[in-house]
Amino acid sequence: MPLKERVHDWLKQHRKDGISLLQNLVRVPSTAGNESGVQRIVAEWLRDTGFDVEAWEPDGGKLAAHPYFYSPRDRFEGSPNVVGVLRGTGGGRSLLLNGHADVVPEGDLGQWRHHPYGGEVSPEEGRLYGRGASDMKGGTASLLLAVRALRDLGVRLRGDVILQSVIEEESGGAGTLDAILRGYRADAALIPEPTNMRIFPKQQGSMWFRITVRGRSAHGGTRYEGVSAIEKSMAVIHHVRELEAARNARVRDPLYAGNPIPLPINIGVIAGGNWPSSVPDTVKLEGRIGVGPEESLEQAQAEMAAWLARLGENDPWFALFPLVLEWFGARWVPGSVDPAHELVRVLSGHYRDVLAKEPAIEASPWGTDGGLLTRLADTPCVVFGPGLTQMAHFPDEHIELDRMFEVAEIVALTIAEWCGIEEDLAR
Amino acid sequence: MPLKERVHDWLKQHRKDGISLLQNLVRVPSTAGNESGVQRIVAEWLRDTGFDVEAWEPDGGKLAAHPYFYSPRDRFEGSPNVVGVLRGTGGGRSLLLNGHADVVPEGDLGQWRHHPYGGEVSPEEGRLYGRGASDMKGGTASLLLAVRALRDLGVRLRGDVILQSVIEEESGGAGTLDAILRGYRADAALIPEPTNMRIFPKQQGSMWFRITVRGRSAHGGTRYEGVSAIEKSMAVIHHVRELEAARNARVRDPLYAGNPIPLPINIGVIAGGNWPSSVPDTVKLEGRIGVGPEESLEQAQAEMAAWLARLGENDPWFALFPLVLEWFGARWVPGSVDPAHELVRVLSGHYRDVLAKEPAIEASPWGTDGGLLTRLADTPCVVFGPGLTQMAHFPDEHIELDRMFEVAEIVALTIAEWCGIEEDLAR
Repeated sequence: MPLKERVHDWLKQHRKDGISLLQNLVRVPSTAGNESGVQRIVAEWLRDTGFDVEAWEPDGGKLAAHPYFYSPRDRFEGSPNVVGVLRGTGGGRSLLLNGHADVVPEGDLGQWRHHPYGGEVSPEEGRLYGRGASDMKGGTASLLLAVRALRDLGVRLRGDVILQSVIEEESGGAGTLDAILRGYRADAALIPEPTNMRIFPKQQGSMWFRITVRGRSAHGGTRYEGVSAIEKSMAVIHHVRELEAARNARVRDPLYAGNPIPLPINIGVIAGGNWPSSVPDTVKLEGRIGVGPEESLEQAQAEMAAWLARLGENDPWFALFPLVLEWFGARWVPGSVDPAHELVRVLSGHYRDVLAKEPAIEASPWGTDGGLLTRLADTPCVVFGPGLTQMAHFPDEHIELDRMFEVAEIVALTIAEWCGIEEDLAR
Repeated sequence: MPLKERVHDWLKQHRKDGISLLQNLVRVPSTAGNESGVQRIVAEWLRDTGFDVEAWEPDGGKLAAHPYFYSPRDRFEGSPNVVGVLRGTGGGRSLLLNGHADVVPEGDLGQWRHHPYGGEVSPEEGRLYGRGASDMKGGTASLLLAVRALRDLGVRLRGDVILQSVIEEESGGAGTLDAILRGYRADAALIPEPTNMRIFPKQQGSMWFRITVRGRSAHGGTRYEGVSAIEKSMAVIHHVRELEAARNARVRDPLYAGNPIPLPINIGVIAGGNWPSSVPDTVKLEGRIGVGPEESLEQAQAEMAAWLARLGENDPWFALFPLVLEWFGARWVPGSVDPAHELVRVLSGHYRDVLAKEPAIEASPWGTDGGLLTRLADTPCVVFGPGLTQMAHFPDEHIELDRMFEVAEIVALTIAEWCGIEEDLAR
């Protein structure tokens, strides 16, 4: 029987186990700082699957010096990375599989109909509910099922498989960064973030910025004696929109063809003034700028700084009181892999075989740890996963269970072809 | 010797006492809740000047039911109102003199070059520095000097003089409201708020509003899937500007002739969103609307509500998610006295006599407790004081001491003419 059918049958037989696995993962509220329970489950699964497993707590002091490090914390006690390595028999290509163990907080419980850490299954809907079901414990479960299936089916791989369950993806990638600095890399990588089954050879990076807009205070009854930082910030927001338009006018990549704003600049927070009847003298804007797959963070920073400086050309106020632009908080490095890359070809081929349709191959509208792998670890990374993009970070996050098993099947076959198998045993 | 010269000489001789009085008042940090020290000084001064003095703590429970009550607190223990009454010999008109004892907080100490509660005098500048020097302990000192001068000069008044030192003006007038409810009223009133020596027969009222603008959240990387409450709030701010223009286009009052925006709408606070890479789903705007001297608070509220509702006509978003308009916090009742009113004539006459120039007669760009007196107590109130409008509520607040003594002189002569004096004794 061909491997495809054997993997398919194995997954069918182990559907209950797969759902239990995801339930166990979702039932651990693994927000930043609370990942150890999930990591124990992953480590045990990997050991039982024949992987050599290493778990370690990243050294925040060492990481802090790295230009790509960002995390709200610098101590990771109790927050281990877990990496399992399955040595190949030799002569094959290595593949790095990466999932993150951390989830974003559940937010306002009142907005959930299903308990965020209940792992509740709705058989009619074919869904499993819970924080992290889509982002991205469902994707990690696909990986774990794929490697277990290959082991159970006696498949012996030629190349190494490195399976990482990392911390801190949601806050900027410190877990994957530390795994890279520890030496983990491979001939290619796959991250099953929630892509709605789309294949992303390219990923947008992003950074957070803060713009401080100055005004001049006055009593609201004589507001004409002051300069409202709120009104000035309206001009700034308009100017930032024009920067977004200019940046996107340059985007020619067909992978962004269907995207109305490939590289958005989002202003997410505004805060200014402190008294209803005073003219506000300061407004702070905080936002996120998308960075193109082939662009560097530094290029985007320089362009934005130069653009904002131009405001002073038309309004002397901004020449007197220039905007203050800061880069703070999280940043995600962009990544770009040639859509003709061999891993995209292999993955697409099995997608077609398993689902009998063409995969959507696009560039992602958001960053993942894949940028770090591609740019820093010389490990070309493709993102493809079963989760629902639109449910990530939202109340009633869930995953469609069929997708999780489909990705497990596609990934198992991709591993086999990419790493190569000892043919005599695979048949 | 005419009274004018006698008052003038008395003030010259008592210049040091007057400065000491203001110093003593300024050295008490009489922010809301801490007025008792100032009130003791005022009460003692009034008793020593022959006034019958009453001090009482307003009953917050009783006040709370009044439609014009606003205060951040509803208990006034330790915060007495002080009222002194000097009974006239009969046959004259009564005059109510009102000053507030409370000051706004000093704010950031680092922005002061002079200690806010030091009462420091700069002889070269002729200034006294400190929180409240202009707003309005300097004005209250003018009143206290005026009545003391008349007493010392043996002037016997025909009408009653009622001198009030009230609490809670800065937060919305609860002190004056309580004095009105206690029965204090007169044939006219004068409040020496910091008007830069201008005479205000009309006063603008004002209210605080809060507008809540709705958006729809989305990930910043796909911001086109959401609706930014920040962008929607820009349309709201623009729309509010148009309301301000429409309201001011109706203002024909010559007292507002020199004012670029007689009835401003100030947006003082903006706050929205909570995550740089999310599309913000809520923005709150807080501001102050100026209410015309002849307008009612309710008219202005209704006009603004109707105007905001019209946003939905051009943008269906606002029809789906109408703005929420709330009236919260402080409100100051507007007041209007005919510029030909007898008190304005008397006051202007002595202004001319003392300063040898024409007074500026205008409508105020902000509210005072005078609106309550005019509208609620049937006591036409004129505002005229020595303080510097532009220093009120600011670091390094100060007063020009000459102005304080000039106002004392003008007020003393105004009291004498308004209330009438026993001529045989006044000469």
